[in-house]
Amino acid sequence: MPLDLVARFAALVAPNDMLDAEDAAPHLVEPRGLYKGRAAIVIRPRSTEEVAAIVRLAHETGTPIVPQGGNTGLVGGQTPDQGGGAILLSTKRLDRIREVDADENLIVAEAGVTLAAIQDAAKAADRLFPLSLGSEGSCTVGGNIATNAGGVGVLAYGNTRDLVLGVEAVLPDGRIWNGLRRLRKDNTGYDLKHLFIGSEGTLGIVTAAVLKLFPAPREVATAFCGVPSPAAALALFRLLRAKAGSALTGCEILPRIGLDFTLRHMAATRDPLSEPHPWYVLVELSSPLSIGLAATLESALAEAFETGIVEDAAIAVSGEHAEAFWRIRQGMSEVQGKEGGSIKHDVSVPLGRVAAFIAEATSAVEAFEPGARVVAFGHLGDGNIHFNVSQPVGVDKATYLERWSAMNEVVHGIVEAYGGSIAAEHGVGRLKRGLLPTVKQSVELDMMRAVKSALDPNGLFNPGVLI
Amino acid sequence: MPLDLVARFAALVAPNDMLDAEDAAPHLVEPRGLYKGRAAIVIRPRSTEEVAAIVRLAHETGTPIVPQGGNTGLVGGQTPDQGGGAILLSTKRLDRIREVDADENLIVAEAGVTLAAIQDAAKAADRLFPLSLGSEGSCTVGGNIATNAGGVGVLAYGNTRDLVLGVEAVLPDGRIWNGLRRLRKDNTGYDLKHLFIGSEGTLGIVTAAVLKLFPAPREVATAFCGVPSPAAALALFRLLRAKAGSALTGCEILPRIGLDFTLRHMAATRDPLSEPHPWYVLVELSSPLSIGLAATLESALAEAFETGIVEDAAIAVSGEHAEAFWRIRQGMSEVQGKEGGSIKHDVSVPLGRVAAFIAEATSAVEAFEPGARVVAFGHLGDGNIHFNVSQPVGVDKATYLERWSAMNEVVHGIVEAYGGSIAAEHGVGRLKRGLLPTVKQSVELDMMRAVKSALDPNGLFNPGVLI
Repeated sequence: MPLDLVARFAALVAPNDMLDAEDAAPHLVEPRGLYKGRAAIVIRPRSTEEVAAIVRLAHETGTPIVPQGGNTGLVGGQTPDQGGGAILLSTKRLDRIREVDADENLIVAEAGVTLAAIQDAAKAADRLFPLSLGSEGSCTVGGNIATNAGGVGVLAYGNTRDLVLGVEAVLPDGRIWNGLRRLRKDNTGYDLKHLFIGSEGTLGIVTAAVLKLFPAPREVATAFCGVPSPAAALALFRLLRAKAGSALTGCEILPRIGLDFTLRHMAATRDPLSEPHPWYVLVELSSPLSIGLAATLESALAEAFETGIVEDAAIAVSGEHAEAFWRIRQGMSEVQGKEGGSIKHDVSVPLGRVAAFIAEATSAVEAFEPGARVVAFGHLGDGNIHFNVSQPVGVDKATYLERWSAMNEVVHGIVEAYGGSIAAEHGVGRLKRGLLPTVKQSVELDMMRAVKSALDPNGLFNPGVLI
Repeated sequence: MPLDLVARFAALVAPNDMLDAEDAAPHLVEPRGLYKGRAAIVIRPRSTEEVAAIVRLAHETGTPIVPQGGNTGLVGGQTPDQGGGAILLSTKRLDRIREVDADENLIVAEAGVTLAAIQDAAKAADRLFPLSLGSEGSCTVGGNIATNAGGVGVLAYGNTRDLVLGVEAVLPDGRIWNGLRRLRKDNTGYDLKHLFIGSEGTLGIVTAAVLKLFPAPREVATAFCGVPSPAAALALFRLLRAKAGSALTGCEILPRIGLDFTLRHMAATRDPLSEPHPWYVLVELSSPLSIGLAATLESALAEAFETGIVEDAAIAVSGEHAEAFWRIRQGMSEVQGKEGGSIKHDVSVPLGRVAAFIAEATSAVEAFEPGARVVAFGHLGDGNIHFNVSQPVGVDKATYLERWSAMNEVVHGIVEAYGGSIAAEHGVGRLKRGLLPTVKQSVELDMMRAVKSALDPNGLFNPGVLI
């Protein structure tokens, strides 16, 4: 980028908001180091108006823009390519919570506010913001919206998409769209916010949003259950859903090998149960009402124990105890990193097919790569399994990771046969862009391209990502 | 339309599926008689493939298409204009329920299936499809999707948008998009189904959908409450929400004048309470679990009675009794028709502003048209009020209705000042198309036009509606 253009961008923000090389560096590599990029400038505007000014200049000069939130995405959607001609626009300094309205059950926040800060603001108003992910301390709500993030609260509260009432966005031509609606019902035309949610920065930049809040839980009952198989885990889910209805707010599945990794690599963790079990289900019941959830959980587990669905279970006796269970679940990705290379599959299948999918994909992967260690875990109630495969012990990590695409092909083929999705909650990004034509009808890809061209005719937003 | 072209369309369907003038007539006027149109042909295909063949020929010949479901819309979106050059394509014969999967909690239905038939199919599988409207016996699910229909179940289950997992649609060029997804999580690109939901037939024709089912209610508790004011009604809503949480599945507000109309014009109805009250709230608690809702309702009403929020209440002692309460609510539009002209406003405001809005809009309307009788009723918990205004007694109906637009302007101005929507659940159609530029930013209208041009570049779908 010519220096005079750099200067023109710099003039649009305060001096420290255009980063020098040292401060820019962390924005150009994602935490796992899988994606690295280059950018002409890294800029962190402080207001929607500054974002709009930057985008207008980019529009005028044909400069590509890569929006970035907390830089925690797992598919490379937040990292520029190696070309070095793009602007990396970080939303981190759009960090104000503009309003919390407990009465209307909503919060208005800028894109760069971390998910944890939103959760905290809701809590301070005696409300719940139910989106919850492993990276919640550093991911931003703008990134959550851009990727339609999932997480552990989807079962009861839906994906990010379901939690957004309105968005404010800067469009590719630099105009600001104030779509900060706060109504539960509004049928005045196409629902454009749903285009931006999950668009991975390809249609503009979400700068703020109106988010739904919920009553804070009054009762929480948590259990860590040992079960013989994924089929038993699913039976347990169904039993709990029947007994607790919408109070079943968490239902995560973990394999024994995942717990082994945790015990090996995470400080201050212990096996919640006295004997090992092949699989585990982490269960949470919660409600804003006092409705005796502890008794509900106990009687459901007693029934599950009698029918052999559950082999053993520990019920949390305190908030700390429950947190210890959740730490095991939330650390699941991290501990795999300590066991060498891990090839990931973020997939979903219809709920009733989860057990069959895990069995078939495990056999296929073990045949494809003898000694590979399948760590299949995730959001059982959503049919969303993180089908991750750790390298065989002792092999070379880099050599193993070279088989990423080939193994993906094996697993994704089974996902397709089960009517599933190969990008359930992490999105497409750079990682799976090339796979879209294999899983989407051409008519749908054509529609996506038509929408992209309609809103970003010059193709300046996040080129190389998603579409 | 030239006769040979008529013949080409006729050749695409079975002989009886291209209607003669007599059978076509009911499709060209909507039930209230407010919109009447003309069409070159009225055609009722029986399969998605037949729809696609018709649309391909229309595309090839530049023939406009007006899609129509149950012809129950209230904004003229289903009625062609007077030009007579368009095809009216009725989806009524796309009437198969393709699948009910109780295990996965979903139903796959074609566009022409009536809402009541979907509800019945769900019930037969011991499930609930929670969308519920006054016209459910004749409206179709395709029309519900095209208009993002609301109704009395939105409070707990959301609008139609929230109940759709996937859609199948014929695009304006005649290609079939099979978007019949059945996953709870799928982040593989723009969520195009949300563009079609609420698009009022302007982007193509939805031919089938995958809809979410819910557990059937086991317990239902229903009450008809006399309250002193809309503010008290809102306080009652909040009390019930706090006591019953997500088990509060219905909360409708009615004014005394609405009940007066009902008693006057609807056979076999009686006042549920012994004395008249200024306002009424119809409350429903329901749950798939047995959690003692009758006791919850009684204790909440006792508390409300003590604090003066509720003046009197009748609790339904049987299903028939509860149905009698609901009949009063569902007949509210019909009985207004018997009192002469009624000028309608389908609006929403933030929940906390409902009472102030009703007060201010009532004063304004009474000043604008002395003697006019405001019948403000609707979905209290959604902030969605049908602010209808019956003519003064004794004036000429046609003269009164001539003031429709001017009165709209008075009421919509107040809605705007309260941050509300002038088309909360009935949509825009022909009725409010001209108002969109007054309530939408130009940047949003531009985006809507860009999307419309991208998917329907020749503008053949439902011209004159929405955009």
